[in-house]
Amino acid sequence: MTATAARAHGAASLDAMFRPASIAVVGASAAPDKAGHAMVRALRDFPGTLHLVNPRGGEVLGRAVIPSLREASDVDLAVLVVPPDAVPGALEDARAAGTRAAVVCAGGFAESGPAGARVQERVVAVAREAGIRLLGPNTSGFVNPVDRTTANFMPAVADLPPGTVGLVAQSGGVNLALAFLLARAGVGLRLGVGLGNAVDVDFPEVLDHLALDDATTAVGLHVEGVADGPALLAALRRTTARKPVVALKVGRSDVSEFARSHTGALTGSYAVTRAALQQSGAVVVDSLEELVAALVALRSVRLPAAARIGVGLVTGQAGPGLVVTDALGARGVALPPLTDATQLRLAQLLPPLTFQRNPVDTGRPSPTFGPVVRTVLDDPGVDVVGVYALDEPGALDPAAALAPLAGRVLLASGGPADALAERRHCLDAVGVPVLAGPGDLATALAAVAADAQVRAVHDAPPVAPTRTVGRTLDEHEAKTLLEGHGLRTPRRHVATDRAQAHAALADLVHGGGRAVVKVLAADVPHKSDVGGVHVGVRDDAGLDRALDAIDAIPRGADPDDRATDGAGPDVRAPRRYLIEELAAPGPELIVGAVRDPVFGPVVLLGLGGVAAELGGEPVLRLAPLSAERAHEMVRALPPAVLHGFRGAPPVDVAALADVLRAVGDVVTTYGDVTELDLNPVRLTADGPVVLDALVVADPATLPGGDS
Amino acid sequence: MTATAARAHGAASLDAMFRPASIAVVGASAAPDKAGHAMVRALRDFPGTLHLVNPRGGEVLGRAVIPSLREASDVDLAVLVVPPDAVPGALEDARAAGTRAAVVCAGGFAESGPAGARVQERVVAVAREAGIRLLGPNTSGFVNPVDRTTANFMPAVADLPPGTVGLVAQSGGVNLALAFLLARAGVGLRLGVGLGNAVDVDFPEVLDHLALDDATTAVGLHVEGVADGPALLAALRRTTARKPVVALKVGRSDVSEFARSHTGALTGSYAVTRAALQQSGAVVVDSLEELVAALVALRSVRLPAAARIGVGLVTGQAGPGLVVTDALGARGVALPPLTDATQLRLAQLLPPLTFQRNPVDTGRPSPTFGPVVRTVLDDPGVDVVGVYALDEPGALDPAAALAPLAGRVLLASGGPADALAERRHCLDAVGVPVLAGPGDLATALAAVAADAQVRAVHDAPPVAPTRTVGRTLDEHEAKTLLEGHGLRTPRRHVATDRAQAHAALADLVHGGGRAVVKVLAADVPHKSDVGGVHVGVRDDAGLDRALDAIDAIPRGADPDDRATDGAGPDVRAPRRYLIEELAAPGPELIVGAVRDPVFGPVVLLGLGGVAAELGGEPVLRLAPLSAERAHEMVRALPPAVLHGFRGAPPVDVAALADVLRAVGDVVTTYGDVTELDLNPVRLTADGPVVLDALVVADPATLPGGDS
Repeated sequence: MTATAARAHGAASLDAMFRPASIAVVGASAAPDKAGHAMVRALRDFPGTLHLVNPRGGEVLGRAVIPSLREASDVDLAVLVVPPDAVPGALEDARAAGTRAAVVCAGGFAESGPAGARVQERVVAVAREAGIRLLGPNTSGFVNPVDRTTANFMPAVADLPPGTVGLVAQSGGVNLALAFLLARAGVGLRLGVGLGNAVDVDFPEVLDHLALDDATTAVGLHVEGVADGPALLAALRRTTARKPVVALKVGRSDVSEFARSHTGALTGSYAVTRAALQQSGAVVVDSLEELVAALVALRSVRLPAAARIGVGLVTGQAGPGLVVTDALGARGVALPPLTDATQLRLAQLLPPLTFQRNPVDTGRPSPTFGPVVRTVLDDPGVDVVGVYALDEPGALDPAAALAPLAGRVLLASGGPADALAERRHCLDAVGVPVLAGPGDLATALAAVAADAQVRAVHDAPPVAPTRTVGRTLDEHEAKTLLEGHGLRTPRRHVATDRAQAHAALADLVHGGGRAVVKVLAADVPHKSDVGGVHVGVRDDAGLDRALDAIDAIPRGADPDDRATDGAGPDVRAPRRYLIEELAAPGPELIVGAVRDPVFGPVVLLGLGGVAAELGGEPVLRLAPLSAERAHEMVRALPPAVLHGFRGAPPVDVAALADVLRAVGDVVTTYGDVTELDLNPVRLTADGPVVLDALVVADPATLPGGDS
Repeated sequence: MTATAARAHGAASLDAMFRPASIAVVGASAAPDKAGHAMVRALRDFPGTLHLVNPRGGEVLGRAVIPSLREASDVDLAVLVVPPDAVPGALEDARAAGTRAAVVCAGGFAESGPAGARVQERVVAVAREAGIRLLGPNTSGFVNPVDRTTANFMPAVADLPPGTVGLVAQSGGVNLALAFLLARAGVGLRLGVGLGNAVDVDFPEVLDHLALDDATTAVGLHVEGVADGPALLAALRRTTARKPVVALKVGRSDVSEFARSHTGALTGSYAVTRAALQQSGAVVVDSLEELVAALVALRSVRLPAAARIGVGLVTGQAGPGLVVTDALGARGVALPPLTDATQLRLAQLLPPLTFQRNPVDTGRPSPTFGPVVRTVLDDPGVDVVGVYALDEPGALDPAAALAPLAGRVLLASGGPADALAERRHCLDAVGVPVLAGPGDLATALAAVAADAQVRAVHDAPPVAPTRTVGRTLDEHEAKTLLEGHGLRTPRRHVATDRAQAHAALADLVHGGGRAVVKVLAADVPHKSDVGGVHVGVRDDAGLDRALDAIDAIPRGADPDDRATDGAGPDVRAPRRYLIEELAAPGPELIVGAVRDPVFGPVVLLGLGGVAAELGGEPVLRLAPLSAERAHEMVRALPPAVLHGFRGAPPVDVAALADVLRAVGDVVTTYGDVTELDLNPVRLTADGPVVLDALVVADPATLPGGDS
């Protein structure tokens, strides 16, 4: 079976879960306060065959209850509303009934401690043996309003409106919270899934299911943690190739707190997960409310992939239009100036005293409103137009004005709830999203732009490591390795005694230069902090002072000393020295890489010094880096840095991108490298030079390694 | 008349505007598409006397139209829906009818150009002469649903629900957009005012009106620009002493763009206005949606002023609770740990497997939900509790559980719209705000905390300047001035020739020290950029090299040369030198002050170098600074800086606060000082030392000055 066929098979097999022809509720209960009762109520409109199972028999909500699932047959989906200990037995019964999928609602499994974890292991084993796909445990279930299939113990969700949005939430509670927020925004669901403990069905399977389901036009993702990074990203790439995905990653505040306390948090999983999701084509947002606004828009408006998206804004009232413009600006979405031709045409349509650039203020809407929006859309720099107008039935019929522009226009309006619901109803039907206010309109426009932009950069395919470095490298070894990947370093000599050091200095400062003298030892990674770096040495006296200071460094005294592997240097050996040519001046950046436990190799580009301490976040991207990804990564630096900082000329994007690609190649090629630190890389007039380098290796990270 | 009485009088006089017993609509029209028709429809439920005026007479919506306002008497409010040119005459007529207030809806005044500005001047003159208070021009008007008084040409607003929230929006459109967003959130209005061009009635008057109106429990403010800073802040202080005010300042994106391009933008009005609003007791938010969520909460929950507010969180579903916790953390609101006693009590109320610290996860809500919330509220570290629970009628009755805790508890819920509206209705009546989702709950909790915290710091009263410095000071003069205000500077000598310079060096480096040699000239403010600063000079040879470099600086070559006043130094005079003792090491900050054209003296505390270039925003506060304000200002530094950066010990808050107060005193005392730059202030082990200083003066800023 090919991978594609397997995937299609895997996705199709979830039809038994999410679109079953028959369902059995195991643990159906007549007691109104029980989840087993609520589940039956939630399934009251299920159009297929519904079996209720309880050893006590009797009736629930007027339906007969059978004592065992073994009395039923052809059951697609078993919904288990029974305590954890009863789940393995129920699964055995389900197998006998030909069941292919099960939802396990109960909590008290792995999330509750070792005893629960043991029960969970049994459940997984039984389900696997039985060939039953499992959702949960520890989830309220799923909602499929289109097929009136609400396998969820929250009865109110049975009334959620059908629609075209798919949801995959790590938490059953967030799945429902999101579903209700979407309903409030007038958006219906195709399918909403709460994964819970996700012992079997997880993000990748549900994403593939939604990717292949033509009735789903956009997908929302709620991520707390990720078990299998590469599988998630592969499924996400397949999905975003077909339809937009909007993702919220929880954990930004914990990570930012951690990042403030230590630069090690630069590698924190929040930042890596966000970068990984974006690289795989998802639009990443910061709150459930933003997720909803983005889905309102993206379920009917998707632009072709493009590196730049031009947003136009037309407003019936200047004040709210200014609020939208401001919010877009704060998100980095600028409104491009309109061409002279567009402005000339607008001047013919509008009263003379309104602002007619971008945004375009129409004044109180009139019959020219539709032609104004069309004119802005026709501007060559504009890809999508946002419209804000208070609801004024006498002055503007938004459906008539905007319907012909569906697919490239979004509306936000203010007015009485019933009037807005009516507008939304009409415009939804023709593919014009209607947002609830200025802030949501800005969020939605930014999401539409981001969805097109994230797909415009293509990544290099993942590669498997082929080599190892064997152990953590000292600075000289690390620089030699990097030179092999095309990076520039200062000319240097290694000295193991003073005579060698003086000879090295004589060679390097010959002709009036200056040198940098450093301790050379893999066990002293923070050399500057312990007096191990001496800059500007120009003569023998200066060299001796530097060497004296280096010799005085206590062994193992570095407070941040990193663990080195067993193959590390003998700390009793004499000090070694690195004598380097002083590099040309220039501003400095930090380039690095880590091996994320979930997502694998990640390249980092950041600012040094206090800027990093202040939480100036580095740019992160998964390695290996394609050339366009490396360029995109450099361009993601803060504009103040990119366009020349500390009086320097603008950053040479191509040269720095080459450095990033080389670092990405090293961390992907050498499977035991856990961390690279090129700190700093100096941007000299002749190109980037690696002034210091550290390569940390841990054989335990290798497949089969002792981790 | 005392100031208080005058204020009371001024506020009371707006009753004729906002709570009139009789209204005349001038420009009433029978044509349904005219604003003069919409206005009559909007006032259809007005309970007082309504006159319709139009020279053509006839009927509008079944009411008789009189040809002139002069035929009416005892008209409190004239609503003018006539073109700009007709406004002065209409005001004359209104005066004859005894009118005390007028709303002018038309645009086409000062905002449209010089011709409109001339008409606007006439309107103001006529109104002032006639003793008529004026709202507008260029506004849709106001809405007072409580008194069924909707002087607004947007008819739908007549159906806005009455409530207790007051709105003051610079834009008539934003006033309505906000009113509809509030209605969507279930919140009614006491009064919503769009100021428009604000030629007479402006922020201060409406704020005072709402402050004294007992039916108003919270106020929302939408600010684009401010005409009279001190008047706004004084009114805001009076208002926030009585009730919460939430403010949105438009302009963050423009300012941040500007700030990225030049550090001069550190003084940009967005940042100053935000700081000024907060210092006067307002809760400042970033969007209309946040403004709405904050008002939902603050209209019924206000805590006593306190420097620290402890927020508790109780959640029925772990996933949404985590989202709220994350959003609070991102806003800097941490959830304090609960005491052992509280946790013991919670353990008796909850199943053993839920998280019972803070947040407290109850699992599916049960009858103990109310006691759980009360237990968290009773914790000594908790001032207010947020609750999230999906709507589950069988499992939880929020009204029964939370009503007894009203005033210190907020609820957010997810569920069907009608069920939530019912909950909201019940809980609103008892003072428990109900938010629409996790993000809004986080916004609301942060706003409740901020409202209590902004009132906990008291400012020094404004002072009038009493002295002048006369002209821009050179570094030596600036440091001498600062020493007079208690600041420390390095020991130094001024030299006007090489002999003096060598004598100065001998004095300063005597005993092995080092010196800093600088050019001394008020016309070279960016000394380092032109080779005017030489650090570490220790002997005569080094001094001569430094002096040679300084003498080589071209006159007037500094690209950022600042304009100096006529009394500045003669650029043909010989160079002067400043020879200083090298200061002890330590991290460096920038302290400064500017005279904002709207709000007056402002003190800045920021980070130097690339951190500032990257948009690391400085802390701004209006001067003069009270001791507690100066301390609060220091504590507003990023935690990474405050707690010790670049390996330094924590910042000495009291010592740095003294520096800030001194700078505040200088900029308030000397009326011609427009800018102070203490860049850097080095935090040495012996306390802060001013390493460089610039004092820029401009006599034109003085009252009567030529600006």
